[in-house]
Amino acid sequence: MDHTLAAEPTHSVWDRSLAPRLRVAPGDEVQIECKDSSGGQVGPHSTIQRFLAIDRTRIHALTGPIWIEDAKPGDVVEIDVLATRHCGWGWSSVLEGLGFLKDRFHTPHLFLWNLEGEVTRSLFPAVVPLRPFLGVMGVARAEDGAFRTRPPGHFGGNLDVRELCAGSRLYLPVFNEGALFSCGDGHAAQGDGEVCINGIECPLDVTLRFHLHKQQPLAGPIVEASEEIAPDSTADAWVVVESGTDVAATARAATGRVIDLLVSRWGFDEIHAYILCSVALKLRLSQVVNEPMFTVSAALSQQILPRRRLFPAG
Amino acid sequence: MDHTLAAEPTHSVWDRSLAPRLRVAPGDEVQIECKDSSGGQVGPHSTIQRFLAIDRTRIHALTGPIWIEDAKPGDVVEIDVLATRHCGWGWSSVLEGLGFLKDRFHTPHLFLWNLEGEVTRSLFPAVVPLRPFLGVMGVARAEDGAFRTRPPGHFGGNLDVRELCAGSRLYLPVFNEGALFSCGDGHAAQGDGEVCINGIECPLDVTLRFHLHKQQPLAGPIVEASEEIAPDSTADAWVVVESGTDVAATARAATGRVIDLLVSRWGFDEIHAYILCSVALKLRLSQVVNEPMFTVSAALSQQILPRRRLFPAG
Repeated sequence: MDHTLAAEPTHSVWDRSLAPRLRVAPGDEVQIECKDSSGGQVGPHSTIQRFLAIDRTRIHALTGPIWIEDAKPGDVVEIDVLATRHCGWGWSSVLEGLGFLKDRFHTPHLFLWNLEGEVTRSLFPAVVPLRPFLGVMGVARAEDGAFRTRPPGHFGGNLDVRELCAGSRLYLPVFNEGALFSCGDGHAAQGDGEVCINGIECPLDVTLRFHLHKQQPLAGPIVEASEEIAPDSTADAWVVVESGTDVAATARAATGRVIDLLVSRWGFDEIHAYILCSVALKLRLSQVVNEPMFTVSAALSQQILPRRRLFPAG
Repeated sequence: MDHTLAAEPTHSVWDRSLAPRLRVAPGDEVQIECKDSSGGQVGPHSTIQRFLAIDRTRIHALTGPIWIEDAKPGDVVEIDVLATRHCGWGWSSVLEGLGFLKDRFHTPHLFLWNLEGEVTRSLFPAVVPLRPFLGVMGVARAEDGAFRTRPPGHFGGNLDVRELCAGSRLYLPVFNEGALFSCGDGHAAQGDGEVCINGIECPLDVTLRFHLHKQQPLAGPIVEASEEIAPDSTADAWVVVESGTDVAATARAATGRVIDLLVSRWGFDEIHAYILCSVALKLRLSQVVNEPMFTVSAALSQQILPRRRLFPAG
């Protein structure tokens, strides 16, 4: 391990003027402690009363920023998720006015999960396999100012893409010198859509490795999902992630970016790339609750394509 | 095999006044020949010129209707997809004014696929695994009249849900005596969304078995996806299928129906069902090209729930 970074003090805005808390070189491994999305305000014995009184401006309680040496606008930062470690518990909540079914579910509710190894053990008639990941990984935005972390974007951020578990890689465009990476919002498991507003929220320690790809085109986040760690549909896939206020338009943009990738990196004719998407692309609603932004993932199995790296080795 | 049914004469509307071409009893197996979605107007050596001249009112060229004895409004018909057999070729097209990216792709294009066993072999820099299924399976609608087959609905129809491959089951509500089941629109493979407007369109022979569940509540199509046949994310899943003109509203309705199912069949508290969806539901855009209707699938792995049938055995 080249570095460790404790969670505190966390931050809850994207702001490129925040002072970096750690400087790393490309290739370095960093062990990062992340609080749960409440920033430690929820604990394994919290009550709904205590939960309703938390300071919601502290969500998502990110760890960072991390300065990546030599990162410049126009570069791509690759984040390899090497390992994740939950702490044995997590929570999910329902709040009035939030969530995909807010017209149906009004009454506030806090649910606490016991996590044992790789599954949930709770007062719950289902056992959910755990695939921990960070809901938020991102770099500082291009603009001056302090932006709340709820809306995701081309800088990454609150993507809630459940494919980002250990073994996967995230590629993000760099908008500022040093990139200024921050992360948090650990989820021990999450469905597509994260419909009630939460995954299994939990403190999560992660080991990340950072690489730089100098001056490469990248319109927005791409995930390279891992086969070993994600033995389901998203195994071994290229996943283009797009966020926007209209689901159909966002899915359209994500599909367009997959076509662009097949053309630019795999040498497809544009029309053939379109047809391949029609017969093989997996379109998912990764999150539908961070209003006004929806996130769509468009995934193509790596097994149907010639083996190739996303960017030239450098 | 209890029955066989040849494709011709096909039909291209939902119309409850159509005379049944076959009568089957619950439990019967039927081998059904389905033309490709053009009704045989496209062949393995078609040119784009010939393709542009086809009679598009003949799409989807369904086989049926099949009268299921004793089926009454309020019943549920279960369709077990036992086997599918493609004929070694298929096609995909792009047409001006159609498809998810119609603003980007204007020039008409016809692509012909060779299908060898379980993969594509074509002039195409990708090899796509085949998972043949019928894009259209449905029962006659409740209303009088002849309805074009493009929009799907609670009666099933043009769902384009790629989980409906061999080994899976489709549950549909019955709206008319005899149910009046028809099917067609074979796809040798298809991605979520079917973005260019086609999967790998192909003639497809299928073996189906029909069962009835008398007077059971069912708000719309549900798929029971098979583990053996679908070794990816949709393996062994309960999939609720919902179609509508607004993607977000449709995804919301699908999620609501999964919650209803967990409450009614698995005895969940409503709030717990909602939270389980947030941490384990998979939300997919099954089709985004049958304007004005979008189709969303909401899938829950069967492995996380106590083993249970969708309806009481009877």
